Amino acid sequence: MKLSNRISAMQFSTIRKLAPFADEAKKRGVSVYHLNIGQPDINTPETFMEGMKHYTDKVLKYVNSRGTDPLIESFIKYYKEWGIDFTKDEIMITNGGSEAIMFTLMAICDPGDEIVVPEPFYTNYNGLADVASVKIVPFITKAEEGFHLPCKENITSKITNKTKAIMVSNPGNPTGVVYTKDEIRMLANIAKENNIFLIADEVYREFVYDDLKYTSALYMTDVLDNIILIDSISKRYSACGARIGLVASKNKELMSEILKLGQTRLCVPAIEQAAAANLINTPKSYFEDVKNEYEQRRNILHKYLTKIPGVICQKPTGAFYVVAKLPIDNCEDFAKWLLTDFEHNNKTIMVAPAEGFYGTKGLGVDEIRLSYCLNTTALQDAMEILAIAIKKYIEIKK
Amino acid sequence: MKLSNRISAMQFSTIRKLAPFADEAKKRGVSVYHLNIGQPDINTPETFMEGMKHYTDKVLKYVNSRGTDPLIESFIKYYKEWGIDFTKDEIMITNGGSEAIMFTLMAICDPGDEIVVPEPFYTNYNGLADVASVKIVPFITKAEEGFHLPCKENITSKITNKTKAIMVSNPGNPTGVVYTKDEIRMLANIAKENNIFLIADEVYREFVYDDLKYTSALYMTDVLDNIILIDSISKRYSACGARIGLVASKNKELMSEILKLGQTRLCVPAIEQAAAANLINTPKSYFEDVKNEYEQRRNILHKYLTKIPGVICQKPTGAFYVVAKLPIDNCEDFAKWLLTDFEHNNKTIMVAPAEGFYGTKGLGVDEIRLSYCLNTTALQDAMEILAIAIKKYIEIKK
Repeated sequence: MKLSNRISAMQFSTIRKLAPFADEAKKRGVSVYHLNIGQPDINTPETFMEGMKHYTDKVLKYVNSRGTDPLIESFIKYYKEWGIDFTKDEIMITNGGSEAIMFTLMAICDPGDEIVVPEPFYTNYNGLADVASVKIVPFITKAEEGFHLPCKENITSKITNKTKAIMVSNPGNPTGVVYTKDEIRMLANIAKENNIFLIADEVYREFVYDDLKYTSALYMTDVLDNIILIDSISKRYSACGARIGLVASKNKELMSEILKLGQTRLCVPAIEQAAAANLINTPKSYFEDVKNEYEQRRNILHKYLTKIPGVICQKPTGAFYVVAKLPIDNCEDFAKWLLTDFEHNNKTIMVAPAEGFYGTKGLGVDEIRLSYCLNTTALQDAMEILAIAIKKYIEIKK
Repeated sequence: MKLSNRISAMQFSTIRKLAPFADEAKKRGVSVYHLNIGQPDINTPETFMEGMKHYTDKVLKYVNSRGTDPLIESFIKYYKEWGIDFTKDEIMITNGGSEAIMFTLMAICDPGDEIVVPEPFYTNYNGLADVASVKIVPFITKAEEGFHLPCKENITSKITNKTKAIMVSNPGNPTGVVYTKDEIRMLANIAKENNIFLIADEVYREFVYDDLKYTSALYMTDVLDNIILIDSISKRYSACGARIGLVASKNKELMSEILKLGQTRLCVPAIEQAAAANLINTPKSYFEDVKNEYEQRRNILHKYLTKIPGVICQKPTGAFYVVAKLPIDNCEDFAKWLLTDFEHNNKTIMVAPAEGFYGTKGLGVDEIRLSYCLNTTALQDAMEILAIAIKKYIEIKK
């Protein structure tokens, strides 16, 4: 039996291709610093496990397809602290941010419709767009400009009569960029003027450094009908394994319709929802500590990167990633070489070739994405190794 | 902004339309027996909550997209008891049986492709097919024949060059039918001869009565490449809220490709997987007790139904549902009337009009589905009320 064209066309991630080489390196006794993953190493707040104890039903029943009341109410409270007002019928709980994106794409796009996205972008957008049979149309943002948005015309030139939305991650994965108020205003204007949605993936909202003020798309109060929020507790509370996310919008028609998709999968797990509802009681100091920790790491990463000759990397101001342009022609080869042919004091690093984060063929070939989900000591060591590796690789390839 | 045609075309369930009337009845002080839902009232085994305690990681991390090793291994052990051999790479854990079906449809069908399904069928197949842009092509099974399969030609006549699979639920939701070995053999032959898949939704495997022998599609060992198993712990362990299901197949190409879909949503919740992995340690007496309880209920239901003049209902032998043909022209109106204009000793019942379980317009209009997720005392009371209500409704409509 032939499988579907849509599944055959889907790609496995580049990281997946590199994983066996990392395993082999470890088998040879080489330690591998993982600068490639977005899995925080920070402890999940104790409020999560405490919340789980609130679940005492003897029968583990289906819960509401929209999400449980306590969890939705906890999110309403959370957004209020950010100056955003939601009512219960404007929020639907999803299986992580990924399901929120999938449902959004299905609700606003028919097969073949288009979504305009700044590149580089979170690779999983590709898979989710494939699932929804939606085409991602990228516009370029550049390492030299810290991956800030280009001028308005560069974005609007990508809009066709098939375009249903612009989708942005802010703070950005993989770039670490935090858009300014003017940039968010521009995106909101484009959405308004073109009668399309603005999908705002704000899962890294808490991770903004240098005392920058964060601008949510939802602050653009004249365009709220056009704005769809994607959110998740995965990064905010280091709770990736809980798979609790949400889609929210002041557009009540959208929220009413999207519930049909929620009903097809009946509900999001009940116990994880009970646990997540208690996260609102996490002390504020948790975020401050986490933010300080990541800010330190960002500083280390950036300091080391800028010392390496030929590396181009503006200081990122958010999330826990950076995309750096290296003086290397093919970073996928380099990433493989790091695992197969290099070690320093019996240690090496694993990085994500940035090519996979671009939609336009040929872009990002000389770039890598680094995440800083390692403690500061490990991170310093890893960055020293990266510097040595780049130098050695360039010598070899001469 | 216009929403997508695919979401506009999706239907809310009939039950959802009736729900406000049930709420209003309750507000008027009328008790409502819910014969409409498939939510078991049986306690979830304690092994589930004990298993949850096995999760002690401080960081709630992503786990493998395919599922955790302990959970997959527990399923391998479970299937072995049923005489079915699976290896690790032949099973992928999903967010309930619903995601297993969605992934299966996407992996084997391109938009516009067809799946042949006996009607009446689980209504959610409609929503999942909509999500995957797949067309359900039904063939009729009848109350008078206990919803057993028709002759081979009635099924094969529905197969076109767009047909990618036959999908059956066995034991059947909503019919309670348990297919014989000959019926499963016939389905396997059709799949083989037409080079299509057989999707076997076996989530009610444990609920087979009258000492009947259960035949899994996986017993057809000459066609294993064609067979895709859908399973879930929801009904088996009364753990609907856990959302733990799986898709499994000996077709390794399929299982390798379907993993791409799993990766788009990263993973299934980690803690629920840890808990579910411990269900394998549930004592056998749990199933025996549950089965005896349901068998008693089935007997009560069937006894009362057959006593009502004009009702057609073969004794169902599996799951916890029955579809009965009533001497009533429009059962949706009847179901509404039960909630809006009827009460007996200040009590009424809620039933599911069967029309929603059919794909062919006009079928099932005179049928209802009853589930038996009520204890025997409540069920007897509910069935007496149903008998009185049918009599009264017929008188009124004369």
